[in-house]
Amino acid sequence: MSSGYPTAIATQSFRSVVSKYRTVFFDAYGVLKNHRGLLAGVEDTFSFLRDENIDFYILTNDASRSPQELAATYVDAGLSQVHEKKIISSGMLAREFLSNKVKSGLVAYVGTPVSAHYVETTGLQTVSIQDLDLEEADQVQALVFLDDEGFDWDRGLNQVVNLLRMRNIPVVVANTDSTYPVSANDVSIAIGALAEMAERIVGKHFIRFGKPDAQMFSFALDHIRCRDQEVSKSDILMVGDTLETDIMGGNHFGVDTALVLTGNTPGRTAKLMMEATGITPDFVCESVLD
Amino acid sequence: MSSGYPTAIATQSFRSVVSKYRTVFFDAYGVLKNHRGLLAGVEDTFSFLRDENIDFYILTNDASRSPQELAATYVDAGLSQVHEKKIISSGMLAREFLSNKVKSGLVAYVGTPVSAHYVETTGLQTVSIQDLDLEEADQVQALVFLDDEGFDWDRGLNQVVNLLRMRNIPVVVANTDSTYPVSANDVSIAIGALAEMAERIVGKHFIRFGKPDAQMFSFALDHIRCRDQEVSKSDILMVGDTLETDIMGGNHFGVDTALVLTGNTPGRTAKLMMEATGITPDFVCESVLD
Amino acid sequence: MSSGYPTAIATQSFRSVVSKYRTVFFDAYGVLKNHRGLLAGVEDTFSFLRDENIDFYILTNDASRSPQELAATYVDAGLSQVHEKKIISSGMLAREFLSNKVKSGLVAYVGTPVSAHYVETTGLQTVSIQDLDLEEADQVQALVFLDDEGFDWDRGLNQVVNLLRMRNIPVVVANTDSTYPVSANDVSIAIGALAEMAERIVGKHFIRFGKPDAQMFSFALDHIRCRDQEVSKSDILMVGDTLETDIMGGNHFGVDTALVLTGNTPGRTAKLMMEATGITPDFVCESVLD
Amino acid sequence: MSSGYPTAIATQSFRSVVSKYRTVFFDAYGVLKNHRGLLAGVEDTFSFLRDENIDFYILTNDASRSPQELAATYVDAGLSQVHEKKIISSGMLAREFLSNKVKSGLVAYVGTPVSAHYVETTGLQTVSIQDLDLEEADQVQALVFLDDEGFDWDRGLNQVVNLLRMRNIPVVVANTDSTYPVSANDVSIAIGALAEMAERIVGKHFIRFGKPDAQMFSFALDHIRCRDQEVSKSDILMVGDTLETDIMGGNHFGVDTALVLTGNTPGRTAKLMMEATGITPDFVCESVLD
Repeated sequence: MSSGYPTAIATQSFRSVVSKYRTVFFDAYGVLKNHRGLLAGVEDTFSFLRDENIDFYILTNDASRSPQELAATYVDAGLSQVHEKKIISSGMLAREFLSNKVKSGLVAYVGTPVSAHYVETTGLQTVSIQDLDLEEADQVQALVFLDDEGFDWDRGLNQVVNLLRMRNIPVVVANTDSTYPVSANDVSIAIGALAEMAERIVGKHFIRFGKPDAQMFSFALDHIRCRDQEVSKSDILMVGDTLETDIMGGNHFGVDTALVLTGNTPGRTAKLMMEATGITPDFVCESVLD
Repeated sequence: MSSGYPTAIATQSFRSVVSKYRTVFFDAYGVLKNHRGLLAGVEDTFSFLRDENIDFYILTNDASRSPQELAATYVDAGLSQVHEKKIISSGMLAREFLSNKVKSGLVAYVGTPVSAHYVETTGLQTVSIQDLDLEEADQVQALVFLDDEGFDWDRGLNQVVNLLRMRNIPVVVANTDSTYPVSANDVSIAIGALAEMAERIVGKHFIRFGKPDAQMFSFALDHIRCRDQEVSKSDILMVGDTLETDIMGGNHFGVDTALVLTGNTPGRTAKLMMEATGITPDFVCESVLD
Repeated sequence: MSSGYPTAIATQSFRSVVSKYRTVFFDAYGVLKNHRGLLAGVEDTFSFLRDENIDFYILTNDASRSPQELAATYVDAGLSQVHEKKIISSGMLAREFLSNKVKSGLVAYVGTPVSAHYVETTGLQTVSIQDLDLEEADQVQALVFLDDEGFDWDRGLNQVVNLLRMRNIPVVVANTDSTYPVSANDVSIAIGALAEMAERIVGKHFIRFGKPDAQMFSFALDHIRCRDQEVSKSDILMVGDTLETDIMGGNHFGVDTALVLTGNTPGRTAKLMMEATGITPDFVCESVLD
Repeated sequence: MSSGYPTAIATQSFRSVVSKYRTVFFDAYGVLKNHRGLLAGVEDTFSFLRDENIDFYILTNDASRSPQELAATYVDAGLSQVHEKKIISSGMLAREFLSNKVKSGLVAYVGTPVSAHYVETTGLQTVSIQDLDLEEADQVQALVFLDDEGFDWDRGLNQVVNLLRMRNIPVVVANTDSTYPVSANDVSIAIGALAEMAERIVGKHFIRFGKPDAQMFSFALDHIRCRDQEVSKSDILMVGDTLETDIMGGNHFGVDTALVLTGNTPGRTAKLMMEATGITPDFVCESVLD
């Protein structure tokens, strides 16, 4: 950052930072990839981690695809280290909730049939909100928001509101993000924003999963401890591009945090954004590449 | 109200109440009509008002149709007194704003071509958000939310968000309601809720018109004073079915208020709702019919 | 603005701007005065207005002192033009509300005995929240937030919450500001923030008066029209230092707006703040002095 | 529940419910005690748990006293089972956060000197917000809200706001409650509400600990697993009197939940409140006594 901006921020090399930790949590979008795909050179970062014996996990607010499918995008791009067990998605937390709290019956979902994977693997029956006949609303035991695609918004969201006026059932939001990038300049409204609109209309409390919620991080830590009991919070570094999710969530959970400038928080405004929000990472790095 | 509910509320005859006032403001939906059309017998109420020499206006959060079209639904149903000059719609406030604050250029609208009437009559050029080419975003001088119909929600709302990321322009919401009834049991999401979602996503302040905002009431009062300079706030009774819009707005503006139990606030829960919200009308009437 | 900041904003001379209008509305703090008192040279601005035959009013979110007392601070500093009739305070709207909607009984107030003037001049009885005996809560017909001084916050705010748990009465907030400046660097929490905390705790709707609410502006316009029937919105310029109150309120009401850089919106961040909030004045001036 | 209310709710005996679990989490206030002290007969409940070999923990949003002091109130009342290790307070999470994320320096606290225990046991230096000299603000590395007592609200809260305008530091809220009961009818404003007011004024994100946040529950579970590795979420029952904290938090975390009617959710309104909020416990019991 020799930018000359009066608000420039001091950065450190990612490798020098990450070397102090035993495990690193990566956000996906804006950190490892962008709208064009994986960042060029990110394979060297993973080689470095392997050589240094640093474990890694990808924590992603994504319930549109299963962990297997999410992992496949990395493996297909040549990153064979990023297999299914390395992915912690918010959809997995939604699945755990349904598994613990909804014993049987029909679950309506908002999203694509592919996203319904997270519900189906619990053994529950599913129906797309698009196809739900409200005459049969009394069979529905829960509603899950998974993806912004796979349904007509007009029909689907009106069905959501009318279902929730009839039935007092748990409502799960498996991705709290409000937008996601679709090109260098444009974004698309994400399922988190659609769910929030429905929540405000019906006036009930929905159950949200995803960063910055602490449960995302404790789910990941439990996941690791199944294999390595000794890991503690001070051994973990959370790396993300978004102050309000990755960095705030990591700070709240009590792990160290590193902001990278390759996504939602560009270098020229990073300092201002940190001051405006009061959210401060422990480290700032240009990217995960250096 | 011989309901036997422990929370039953004392009501008064509408005619005994309204007789004390010179002018009455009616909300439309839930007061004069419901999902089946005009309330049976409402013509007698209007005859009573005429006989008692009580003036009336209909204040409606509706920007989907012009005052002429709104009036026509009453006239066609036999209520010839409800002509265009008796309608005060939130769309008229949006039109006044555009007329005062947007001198020239292109206005993008969210709604049907019919709803765009409120923009076109100011002399401004219009384009549906559906048809807007974002390559030409720099020509757009304002954005107006008018109706929940007339566009594909998925495409239209994503266009809204991306337009507002590119352009720092005034955004007008011409109807603040979040739902409207479409049958005895079901509602439809209204443009107010869609606009609020967009506002939260882009983080900017939109300009809202409609009850409970005081401007709706002062616009109506100015409208009356063009013809009758002597009317003061104490001469006016606001009649509505919704605590948060009709009654709160009327109270805030300083006119007396009467709640009717034919719409959003049924008799069995009226008292609880008044206690929960802290919004109390001066009078409660079963309906405008008695 | 030859500041060299990449975000610098183009300004115009205040006199060249105001000359196009028949009436100007000033915010007080940050525009005409600061923590040290009246801006040096502001008397020349008022002389200019008089010479150009431009009428003026001061619109202030202040219910701590009566219009007479507010005017006296200007007159004592040598600005004899700023007499009582030139002051429109949010306290005056609260008084109008009480006068229209609370016919008799006891009104509890949060503030100094001096601020209770706004209640007492309606003929209603008053009691400070500090002195209220909750055993006699059933006599209280309304609660009014006037000033952050004159009571012990701990006792007073707990009394507010317990009073509103017992009594479902109108609650009026006569100043919506959340802070006010007390020195070059420091602020004090204003009554608007204390009222908002109480509102969230008890979950009821309070009735707020003050910018940016349209009622503040329509009250001022009604006030003018008592003397000059011909003034229309296009004749009025609102001048303020705060985007969220003065400028948003003026824009919403449909009058032209000018931001000055002598208060809450300094030149170096004005452009960023306009982009972040979506609130854009028609004009930007360094101050009212040039 | 032979109440005759049309909204009555079916309840189950607490002992029949709890027998299905290995561990029970109790909320304290409204469940085990009320404003007069421990519920008469609660010792029999603890004897039952011991006889049935059901482990228990008390999860409390309380940072005003240390776990030792909180436990002492039970032991002194004859419940020797409730020793320090059985208490999980939100203050303990705040302490863990400070320990992980604030390595050295001065921490300003809002509360009594006793509540500062949670900071002091991390080895950090403390200063009461009351005594802080803002000239030395640059030494303060974090701010912690602990208790609503121990400081003058007027001075203390203004100091908070001005400190946070000068310093971009982590702010921890160690109790998210907005009120607590002080007698049969009256409540007192809690530190959570004061902190939320400050957060809204300064516009920054504070870090909150306490129910319903998942971290409270995962902290408790980690605590248990230190002694009993085998406990899983399905072995745990959360018992509370408040839908928005105890029940929503427990549901979100994925454990079963039981609502008792001895506190914030009385039997006559429980069903309405469950419908209004959308928060539904797995079980409803009159109290923990039967």
